Amino acid sequence: MRLPLLLCWIGAFVLLSNDRASAQSQPLGAVRSYWSTHESEIVDELVEFLKLPNVAADIPAMRRNAEALLEMMAARGIAARLLETDGPPYVFGELQVPAAARTILFYAHYDGQPVDASRWVGHDPFTPVLRDAPLEAGGRIIDFPTHEKYDPDWRLYARSAADDKSPIVAMLVALDALQAGSVEPTANLKFLFEGDEEAGSPNLGALVREHAELLSADLVIGADGPRDPSGQPTLYFGARGIVSAEITVYGPLRPLHSGHYGNWAPNPAMRLAQLLATMKDPETGRVRVDGFYDDVVPLSDFELQAIAEAPNDDVEQMQTFAIAAPESEGGRLLLLNQPSLNVRGLRSGWVGSEARTIVPDLAIADIDLRLVKDVDPGRQVGRLIAHIEKQGYHVLTDEPDAETRRRYARLARVVTSDGYPAFRTSMDLPVSRTLIEAVETHTGQSAVKLPTLGGSVPLYLFTDVLRVPTVGIPIVNHDNNQHSPNENLRMGHLWSGIEILASAMLIR
Amino acid sequence: MRLPLLLCWIGAFVLLSNDRASAQSQPLGAVRSYWSTHESEIVDELVEFLKLPNVAADIPAMRRNAEALLEMMAARGIAARLLETDGPPYVFGELQVPAAARTILFYAHYDGQPVDASRWVGHDPFTPVLRDAPLEAGGRIIDFPTHEKYDPDWRLYARSAADDKSPIVAMLVALDALQAGSVEPTANLKFLFEGDEEAGSPNLGALVREHAELLSADLVIGADGPRDPSGQPTLYFGARGIVSAEITVYGPLRPLHSGHYGNWAPNPAMRLAQLLATMKDPETGRVRVDGFYDDVVPLSDFELQAIAEAPNDDVEQMQTFAIAAPESEGGRLLLLNQPSLNVRGLRSGWVGSEARTIVPDLAIADIDLRLVKDVDPGRQVGRLIAHIEKQGYHVLTDEPDAETRRRYARLARVVTSDGYPAFRTSMDLPVSRTLIEAVETHTGQSAVKLPTLGGSVPLYLFTDVLRVPTVGIPIVNHDNNQHSPNENLRMGHLWSGIEILASAMLIR
Repeated sequence: MRLPLLLCWIGAFVLLSNDRASAQSQPLGAVRSYWSTHESEIVDELVEFLKLPNVAADIPAMRRNAEALLEMMAARGIAARLLETDGPPYVFGELQVPAAARTILFYAHYDGQPVDASRWVGHDPFTPVLRDAPLEAGGRIIDFPTHEKYDPDWRLYARSAADDKSPIVAMLVALDALQAGSVEPTANLKFLFEGDEEAGSPNLGALVREHAELLSADLVIGADGPRDPSGQPTLYFGARGIVSAEITVYGPLRPLHSGHYGNWAPNPAMRLAQLLATMKDPETGRVRVDGFYDDVVPLSDFELQAIAEAPNDDVEQMQTFAIAAPESEGGRLLLLNQPSLNVRGLRSGWVGSEARTIVPDLAIADIDLRLVKDVDPGRQVGRLIAHIEKQGYHVLTDEPDAETRRRYARLARVVTSDGYPAFRTSMDLPVSRTLIEAVETHTGQSAVKLPTLGGSVPLYLFTDVLRVPTVGIPIVNHDNNQHSPNENLRMGHLWSGIEILASAMLIR
Repeated sequence: MRLPLLLCWIGAFVLLSNDRASAQSQPLGAVRSYWSTHESEIVDELVEFLKLPNVAADIPAMRRNAEALLEMMAARGIAARLLETDGPPYVFGELQVPAAARTILFYAHYDGQPVDASRWVGHDPFTPVLRDAPLEAGGRIIDFPTHEKYDPDWRLYARSAADDKSPIVAMLVALDALQAGSVEPTANLKFLFEGDEEAGSPNLGALVREHAELLSADLVIGADGPRDPSGQPTLYFGARGIVSAEITVYGPLRPLHSGHYGNWAPNPAMRLAQLLATMKDPETGRVRVDGFYDDVVPLSDFELQAIAEAPNDDVEQMQTFAIAAPESEGGRLLLLNQPSLNVRGLRSGWVGSEARTIVPDLAIADIDLRLVKDVDPGRQVGRLIAHIEKQGYHVLTDEPDAETRRRYARLARVVTSDGYPAFRTSMDLPVSRTLIEAVETHTGQSAVKLPTLGGSVPLYLFTDVLRVPTVGIPIVNHDNNQHSPNENLRMGHLWSGIEILASAMLIR
């Protein structure tokens, strides 16, 4: 009974959205008119930008990217400059709007993941090519220059075509389009483009602290990641944080013959299995570490409703990944709003054709803990360590010497990462509601609104240090091969992405 | 109170043994007189034999070893011949003793472990050298030919110096010595020398079945492995069998992002840990698989007493291997008479510097099960599989396809080895008691008598197929670097080894 009702409700909402769209999407008419008559010009700018190699470790190359960005921004009248760090420079720019009541800071990154050119099919990752369909669907390389119009299903292949240079170009083209239509942004606009996001943003913390005033804003919009597979505009109001712990459990000082010592020498692989098994309920997937869920801030009704309305592809994903049953009940999108304990790796002795009949000397489990709003990385990993101690283990951080190993029958070394916290901007804030309304009204589509993205990005630096509400608005296709060979951008997503980002520049 | 009593008892036993020795060890006087006047000659024969490369896979080389053995045996009047198999030939020989009431079959192997010549210090593994002390104690290479007498602490370095060519030479020299002293063996003697023991004796089963009559005997004596570290004569009446199981537990079809999927995609590493944890009591080390101990045949009082009398080096071993507490109570030598479940390897995802933030697609545990008398390999591994099924798993032997993975939330692939059973000859048999008495009386030393060696050797083929009581009498030093580079034999162990094997030829 409830499902049909829900479907009716969604149907009604879409109709309503379309009504609102036809009434109020005038400004985006100008944007659409602009991009649809400048497709080659837009692609040319993006292609030139993609030709610049952009692996963060290559500082001179990154500086060439930054210089190019300065020129691209200056061409739009943006006062732009470099903010130097220990790594590649940040590119910062500002566009004042006289009547603006707010300031929006747009954030994106111009570095890309390292490349393995040998795994790119048909071209170098920094020589962009156009295909008439996705590579996986047999797409063939076609020429650029002869096309005035781009089929929306064509794909542009290059490193950073999706992650994250095309959102930068889309922002700048959105400005061109608004200007061409004589539509004024409703907010002052700031832009911050990072050069070492793929290296884990090691300098972002220092930067926001040093330039807090320069970066001050009423809203941060991060344009990274893929849009919902449905193609609907997507807004995420948070992302999980992360901290990791590598746990080593010890057996004999060196591997021992399992015949001569099996039953007598303690086996660290079995010990580790017994320890890990205490951490999670095998039936519910609930983590059994004391206090693990204590700091979790419940979702509001509005946020719960947004999840209920978001396209639910759990069944398809189960089919795709051959999953018979999820670890926990409640649906994937809801579960991403809970902290997690994930065993990402196990190592002990040898298996298969390499197996040796030994009692291993040690066993390692590598665990990542995903964090949600207000769950502190240090406190959470501290709870895990307390849990290990509660199982009778003596816990240390350095490699134990033989004397220490002789002393403690249960001995664990736990090496933790610093990690960083989650961020979550409440969807109930006025600025959040205003942004949702702007995107949905201008684009004429209901948006997929997620309280929390499952993955981790260090945007807490904006919410927790700068104290600015932060929302992610990804524009690229979900099947973009992000971080992998043959990264690509669907052309239709670039066009609609320009519209989505323009709509965010028009919040009331 | 009990320890001093035990020590008194052992002391009395040693005195008694020495008394017996002085009264009845006449024949070994002749043996000692022989070897002590023929040291260079004995070493020369062994060195020439060690110069023949003997890796089982090199059949022509193995044939040269077999031909050399035929000559060495013929020189002692042993009627010898080759028994052909699919691998290197077995060398069989027989020496009839007119008045003999019994037949003893001596078994040893003439192949050696593969070599990594680059890891041998100072010489090629097939160019034997003499050192004035163990390499680890700074022993230097000294010349062979100038020495008429060999210091018992000198070491002979070469592949198979210990494992297992020197026991073969010791048997033949024992015959020389008895003959020189006009002492007749009390039994007909048969000899079986294998050429692919280090390759796992793949042809021994077929051989003993084909030549059951030729190999018939009242007692088999295997001369392989190291003597007890105390240097006392050592007799083992059994060895554990082995069977292995590689268990794979499945998660998503490919590794998934632990942020976007953690809490929802089932984690196979955690599942595997939970499964393994059900298999063993963390406090007692007792295996919790139903029926695991059902077929274990208890030790007799005599066997329990033999274990109690054997040198107990548990405390030293705990010190050496930095073990704070053994897995189970009861002492190592007693525990080796129980079946074991040993996790020899774990693999899932990645750890440490290679760690990736993923939910792994699978997790593997490799397990070896050591077996004791009457615990059948197939039945025991069947119990393990039944246990896995009892935990809710669907178990299969082939790699599951995606459809199968979609169907079963708990799915395990279990690949088992054939394995082979343990052997254990009762110490209470008349022939066992007679053998113990012969060795202890003639050598004048109390022997270390073990119902079961922890490691596995397929001597069940003699006990279970030929139905002949089988006992192992190792003669070489325990620190011989068996299976490793710089394998060596302590000269004193060769001399006393000749005496020990000669004493076995004189059982009543």
